[in-house]
Amino acid sequence: MKVSSLGERGVIELIWSILRQEGSTDPSKLELPPSDDASALKLDASRFLVLKADLFVKRTDAPRGMRTRQMGVKVVTMNISDLAAKGARPAAFLFSLGLPKNYLKKKVQDLIEGINSACTAYCSPVLGGDVGEARELLVAGFAAGFAKKLVKRSGASPGDIVAVTGEFGDTGAAYKILLEGMDAPCRLRRHICSSVYAPKAQLRVGIALAESGAATSSMDSSDGLAFTLNELAKASSVGFTIRDLPISENALEFSKLNRIPADDLALYGGEEYEIVYSIKKEKWDLAQKAAREAGGRLVRIGEVVSSRKVILARGSEEEVIPSKGWEHLR
Amino acid sequence: MKVSSLGERGVIELIWSILRQEGSTDPSKLELPPSDDASALKLDASRFLVLKADLFVKRTDAPRGMRTRQMGVKVVTMNISDLAAKGARPAAFLFSLGLPKNYLKKKVQDLIEGINSACTAYCSPVLGGDVGEARELLVAGFAAGFAKKLVKRSGASPGDIVAVTGEFGDTGAAYKILLEGMDAPCRLRRHICSSVYAPKAQLRVGIALAESGAATSSMDSSDGLAFTLNELAKASSVGFTIRDLPISENALEFSKLNRIPADDLALYGGEEYEIVYSIKKEKWDLAQKAAREAGGRLVRIGEVVSSRKVILARGSEEEVIPSKGWEHLR
Repeated sequence: MKVSSLGERGVIELIWSILRQEGSTDPSKLELPPSDDASALKLDASRFLVLKADLFVKRTDAPRGMRTRQMGVKVVTMNISDLAAKGARPAAFLFSLGLPKNYLKKKVQDLIEGINSACTAYCSPVLGGDVGEARELLVAGFAAGFAKKLVKRSGASPGDIVAVTGEFGDTGAAYKILLEGMDAPCRLRRHICSSVYAPKAQLRVGIALAESGAATSSMDSSDGLAFTLNELAKASSVGFTIRDLPISENALEFSKLNRIPADDLALYGGEEYEIVYSIKKEKWDLAQKAAREAGGRLVRIGEVVSSRKVILARGSEEEVIPSKGWEHLR
Repeated sequence: MKVSSLGERGVIELIWSILRQEGSTDPSKLELPPSDDASALKLDASRFLVLKADLFVKRTDAPRGMRTRQMGVKVVTMNISDLAAKGARPAAFLFSLGLPKNYLKKKVQDLIEGINSACTAYCSPVLGGDVGEARELLVAGFAAGFAKKLVKRSGASPGDIVAVTGEFGDTGAAYKILLEGMDAPCRLRRHICSSVYAPKAQLRVGIALAESGAATSSMDSSDGLAFTLNELAKASSVGFTIRDLPISENALEFSKLNRIPADDLALYGGEEYEIVYSIKKEKWDLAQKAAREAGGRLVRIGEVVSSRKVILARGSEEEVIPSKGWEHLR
């Protein structure tokens, strides 16, 4: 059997089935389970070490038209976003660089400048890395950070508020433009495409919400909002009723122009790097304040329910949000 | 200009020249400088966090005939060996796996079993990782560990003893067999080749020597003994006079059979994963005892001198040991 039949998630399941069986790792002893956004170790009474490895391969992870410098920013953002979702402050970024032999020095410079500028923005010093030869450009990023409190994917209870750190739909629209040839006027096209060319992690909001104690669960939305909502609900054995999809003005305009459902752009875009939270109802005001003071925001989109379904409710109409999302190797 | 003209070390220099200039990282504030075996952060009064990223690409890092399971062991060993050289106890191993779409599930299993067995042997739980599509098999390894004391590449003083944790020459002979078609009787061939197929990191000895306080500098020998001696001497602005090259019986036998200098096998082999140390003269007995109690040994090969040359001395004859070693991208 080939790995393309398993898909990325099947390979990850295979890996953990081996590790679980044979010994080096006891998943029940991990501070964050294998399926969470990142990994963690307890350092002392008030500190966790949070670790993340995320691989950027140009061929599959750089949308058409992305500049080399932007690729450097993206690989850092991919890793830092998972730290942010768990409430960790970055302390170190390392990377292994796979370079084709004929790759240009100028491009390496652009890539490193991108990595450097993102690490500067996220206050995460580059500590080291490795360079080797590969058939295609790739950057394996590794981030380490410290968290006072960990927010897991599990922990949501019925009655909690479901909230997100920003609007969705721009990246979905961008992929319609870049992969399916849909179009938009110049200004709109530029705004929309910048969402995939220059992604930003919600780091300050992520740290503030974890430390506020208001968040009961969280996950970074980079696999798409629909998939993220389903994974988050599954991890807590609950369901979500989503009442307000947070769709950006740009995505709404794009959906009208191209006559496609705006909901789909928001639900199945992917690569947004927002964070999806469940928040204790009585701490909702506190959470909003924490997000605002961190320079961001928290948008209420629904609530946690006990029936294990993720539903989009519009007045009396309800439909299930399926767990669709991007998957490598498929 | 292409990266093949720069070579691996040129690319690494380029990277640090950008990071140094523009901001995210101030190398003067790092606990271990960019050129050291690994990176480190101070956690508290008695603990350092040591981090290492090392990339394994099958095409360049797996010698001919290496099994997939052995590749898994090797990527762990590559990373743990650098932690060992700095005196750190492993606490977490993560990896990003780049898989061709048509790669077989069975091979993924073999690879993970190798990673798992090595992580079990080094007491380093696998905490997480990532899976993506790549044109060729690669594993980007990432190890995190804790050290009570850090041993840097710099710190050697004239009068210190130069010592190594094992014998050299087997891997040099193995590459003569695998890359240049030289031969040896079956038993000898098997022993020699096992040195590159099943490398082991000197973890227990590395931790014991760092904690003994006897080591003044150290470096893992994976780039070859000649290169390692030169780098280690340069980092402390000293020289080494090497009097006894620690050559294995197998390498001596192989050199006789094939009429090639045994010294060259020991100096320019590479991929040995031993550790080269400078040791305070008055603590030599203590250091030997620490290595023995950790199940290993420490072999004296020469001494640190003030003239900045690395010399091989045989009676009255002296020759410079050039800084030759394996380099990716060349």
